Amino acid sequence: MGVEERRQQLIGVALELFAQRSPDEVSIDEIAAAAGISRPLVYHYFPGKISLYEAALKRASEDLASRFVEPHEGPLGARLLRVMGRYFDFVDEHGPGFSALMRGGPAVSVGGVDSMSHVSTTNALIDSVRQAAYEQILSHLGIADPPARLDLVVRSWISLAESTALIWLDGRRIPREELEVQLVRDFAALMAVSAAYDTETRALLRPVLDGEPAGGPFGDLAARLIALVS
Amino acid sequence: MGVEERRQQLIGVALELFAQRSPDEVSIDEIAAAAGISRPLVYHYFPGKISLYEAALKRASEDLASRFVEPHEGPLGARLLRVMGRYFDFVDEHGPGFSALMRGGPAVSVGGVDSMSHVSTTNALIDSVRQAAYEQILSHLGIADPPARLDLVVRSWISLAESTALIWLDGRRIPREELEVQLVRDFAALMAVSAAYDTETRALLRPVLDGEPAGGPFGDLAARLIALVS
Repeated sequence: MGVEERRQQLIGVALELFAQRSPDEVSIDEIAAAAGISRPLVYHYFPGKISLYEAALKRASEDLASRFVEPHEGPLGARLLRVMGRYFDFVDEHGPGFSALMRGGPAVSVGGVDSMSHVSTTNALIDSVRQAAYEQILSHLGIADPPARLDLVVRSWISLAESTALIWLDGRRIPREELEVQLVRDFAALMAVSAAYDTETRALLRPVLDGEPAGGPFGDLAARLIALVS
Repeated sequence: MGVEERRQQLIGVALELFAQRSPDEVSIDEIAAAAGISRPLVYHYFPGKISLYEAALKRASEDLASRFVEPHEGPLGARLLRVMGRYFDFVDEHGPGFSALMRGGPAVSVGGVDSMSHVSTTNALIDSVRQAAYEQILSHLGIADPPARLDLVVRSWISLAESTALIWLDGRRIPREELEVQLVRDFAALMAVSAAYDTETRALLRPVLDGEPAGGPFGDLAARLIALVS
């Protein structure tokens, strides 16, 4: 294998192992064995476990960000629901690695003792994925320069999606399909709360919501909420 | 001063400095100067910056958790709003330290290179505050053993409150009083989304919401949402 081919293989092997157990429990020896090469040869391609972990995290980040891309066609609720399906696919595929990273664990403790540059590298990758999600949502809403209140709703909903996925991974007590649609409804609900008290948000969202079908996730939620509070 | 008195003084001085700048920008020399003692004397009370940081974080965690305590009297929306006021007081008082900690930064990089035990100490303190918030909310809802769906809504709303506070700190573009009441409404909205699709959650929340006044945060939100979607 060429150098780049071997590096990509090792990244793939590492991601498979991080999907089964937390990265701090996976040794370089295991990665070497799973790749069918010697431990010293792993160090030939990656100077240490941190650099291999960061390369794996970079690939996973790009993979996740690519799943946010959705055609600008059809009702918004249905688009967001498809993205949520792919998001939970990713979370499902990378369970322990995703949990460990988002809980601030092995991302910063691989190898036992880590440097500040590693902390900032992992934080920057997490932020890049959040930013990709943020930009996708705004592009689907057709809003280029969001005012502060809309910005806050979009960003805080992204963190709600993260925490919902983390809570799901911890025991998987609720079917993921239910949480995918719940997050779409949560998005609508948080937007509605903001729009209910802010005329600027209301004016921006009105044309968006007018295009939603009564039977879609947004329309159905509205009908049920009215029934609930009446 | 006695040993414990001096330790408490140093913790207080450190927290004041962390409230102005990120903990990784505050040196032991500055802490010593602000306390009016020599650098070696600081090390007499705390073996290193990490142990002083952890002691400061512990005091701040206990302070924050104590602000969640609210008498079980009056409408729930009004109770939660008072807690949100005290929560934003805390966030306001500890701005840079709070941001750095919750973004996984200096909590794990004080001193440049840190140990896994420090990572787990800070994570455990953050988790203890979240758990305190979770238990307070359930006690006010009068629910001792929440089913999975209600558990998820409460925990994910707590993370929404954290991210809302962090976004607020980054530029303070929205008045905090507005976000305090918005979080109360978000709580009601996320609960309502769950209740709209889950009979168990609905049955648990019905008696709670029946006690809310029409003019309170919950009642007003319901009226506005109906007007918005009609």
